[in-house]
Amino acid sequence: MRVGGVEQRSIWLADDGVTVEIIDQTRLPFEFVVARLAQLGDAVEAIRTMQVRGAPLIGVTAAYGLCLALRADASDAAVEAASEELLATRPTAVNLRWALDEMREALRGLPPSERVAAAYAKAAALADADAETCRRIGEHGFALVEQAFAARDRSGPVNVLTHCNAGWLACVDWGTALAPVYLAHERGTPVHVWVDETRPSNQGASLTAWELGQHGVPHTVVTDNAGGHLMQHGRVDLCLVGTDRTTATGDVCNKIGTYLKALAARDNGVPFYVAAPSSSIDWSLDDGLAQIPIEERAGREVSHVTGLAPGQRRVEVAILPDKSPVSNFVFDVTPARLVTALVTECGVCEASREGLLSLFPDRRTR
Amino acid sequence: MRVGGVEQRSIWLADDGVTVEIIDQTRLPFEFVVARLAQLGDAVEAIRTMQVRGAPLIGVTAAYGLCLALRADASDAAVEAASEELLATRPTAVNLRWALDEMREALRGLPPSERVAAAYAKAAALADADAETCRRIGEHGFALVEQAFAARDRSGPVNVLTHCNAGWLACVDWGTALAPVYLAHERGTPVHVWVDETRPSNQGASLTAWELGQHGVPHTVVTDNAGGHLMQHGRVDLCLVGTDRTTATGDVCNKIGTYLKALAARDNGVPFYVAAPSSSIDWSLDDGLAQIPIEERAGREVSHVTGLAPGQRRVEVAILPDKSPVSNFVFDVTPARLVTALVTECGVCEASREGLLSLFPDRRTR
Repeated sequence: MRVGGVEQRSIWLADDGVTVEIIDQTRLPFEFVVARLAQLGDAVEAIRTMQVRGAPLIGVTAAYGLCLALRADASDAAVEAASEELLATRPTAVNLRWALDEMREALRGLPPSERVAAAYAKAAALADADAETCRRIGEHGFALVEQAFAARDRSGPVNVLTHCNAGWLACVDWGTALAPVYLAHERGTPVHVWVDETRPSNQGASLTAWELGQHGVPHTVVTDNAGGHLMQHGRVDLCLVGTDRTTATGDVCNKIGTYLKALAARDNGVPFYVAAPSSSIDWSLDDGLAQIPIEERAGREVSHVTGLAPGQRRVEVAILPDKSPVSNFVFDVTPARLVTALVTECGVCEASREGLLSLFPDRRTR
Repeated sequence: MRVGGVEQRSIWLADDGVTVEIIDQTRLPFEFVVARLAQLGDAVEAIRTMQVRGAPLIGVTAAYGLCLALRADASDAAVEAASEELLATRPTAVNLRWALDEMREALRGLPPSERVAAAYAKAAALADADAETCRRIGEHGFALVEQAFAARDRSGPVNVLTHCNAGWLACVDWGTALAPVYLAHERGTPVHVWVDETRPSNQGASLTAWELGQHGVPHTVVTDNAGGHLMQHGRVDLCLVGTDRTTATGDVCNKIGTYLKALAARDNGVPFYVAAPSSSIDWSLDDGLAQIPIEERAGREVSHVTGLAPGQRRVEVAILPDKSPVSNFVFDVTPARLVTALVTECGVCEASREGLLSLFPDRRTR
């Protein structure tokens, strides 16, 4: 997608062919800063400090981190040590482990002298595969946006509500929930996005608003409280959100607050779509509420806010009474009954076991 | 209620018997600062700049503002001019007009020489009446808290979720939604409050958390996104919120986001109670969604956050990309069908025309 009119991915190889470059997402939306990852430790720190975030992007960053490690030492022991170090950065991110498994599989049996080139090739393939998965989700979701446009008698814009950041900044390119929006925008279907602020980490306000703005997609930021009111008044045509984990029965675990928007969508007859790459499906689970543990993070994310103070300085300010306790649950589960459809790279399906098996039939016999 | 162990109201007469003192709520939760209102202009500014807020407190502040005006000039013309100036501060606050009407009614027919004393007496009566209304809401709501405690087999605490600030800071004392909580706490029924942050103005994080903390009521601040997750996991026994305007059919208009919590309460079988002083009932309305206009305020409330920077300085920081548009709807409407019951100073009733008429039968014949 575009930044300042220039096509951009969230991670890429530098001109020297070995160093990796990323957008430092902790500096957004105020500064566009490219960070260079020259060795394993840089990649570890980038993931740990959330310069990169979003499950797909974390996976690809880890893959390139392994490449950087191999340049220094391509021995079996070094591969294992680097993998362990990368895995420890965000122990709950499913894609991190998956990407590292893919990398080790690609290196299996190769002599150390051939590993660096093979690793870079595999990391690039993983990045390209993620971009392609997102583009395909975009194609399938675009049909739903077109459907909403038709329901409006082709008088635009189609109003999409999204929560958190499931855009290209969370992936390599395109994004998951935002891919259909970008495609619609590029193909001339007028679209406007209501961007939930997404407290406490404000990924909507700081990342989604920024990436839509840079690409020229019309959007409006609202508080997380506003979506119900917008839907009551017919100002949302469809909701489109991402998912961090999808059960085999179609329950989706996504950023906290997603469930509230799904309830409002149902109460107002607004379609609620979830962009779910197949990598997000956990086929071992059938009850999201009972089986998916909900991460609780530091209260400081709630009690403090970072922003730009006068004079262009980034400042962290406290917004709570000193002694008030805080809880910070990060995800919630939206039951399948509230999800109108899942949008995967293989097509659109009902949020149910039968729906998912219709797209992934090889799972039926396992 | 108590601040630092001392009983406190939100507005009171100073020792000199004429000056009015308020808590400057724009300085909370970081500083407890008492502001003195010595003349009409001080009262006007206090309302305009939201040093005082909350419909009941705005009304009482306006009443005292008129007293201060009369000390300078008790003529008919001065009464009218002062009323106009006070009304213009927050043109949508119903209580403001009501309180000024009450004041002018009390002054009607009195010679100018007797007006100052009569005005101070009436303003004090309005303040006391508001505190008594809230205390009675507390009594009726306390029975509901006790009911929830019994449903837990008297194993506490009773977990109450509230949105925005409907506490004593919004009134003169006790509050509306929080009055039952304070009574329960004082009477030994263990109670714990989940405090919604309440974006964009953060009245939950900055006012509700502060007043509960000062009074010693156990509470935890959560983002507005968290309530659905808490209810899904059985961690909320009842919701208790306020209302800015209640229709004759039981629809309630309250701070934006209230509707989302009501949806989550219904989806999880959690009682959703609204503390509605009779002054909030607009008997002329029967469809909240269609008939209550929703105020939209400056986007800066969303795009900027004020907090305490290191070194104890209050700083306003920007949290959005420069060019991203913002919408800031302030209220939403929760349809009566989602409200378990209304808690008024005259008792608890179903959120319906019949329910309200059972408590206010003299409205039946009008």
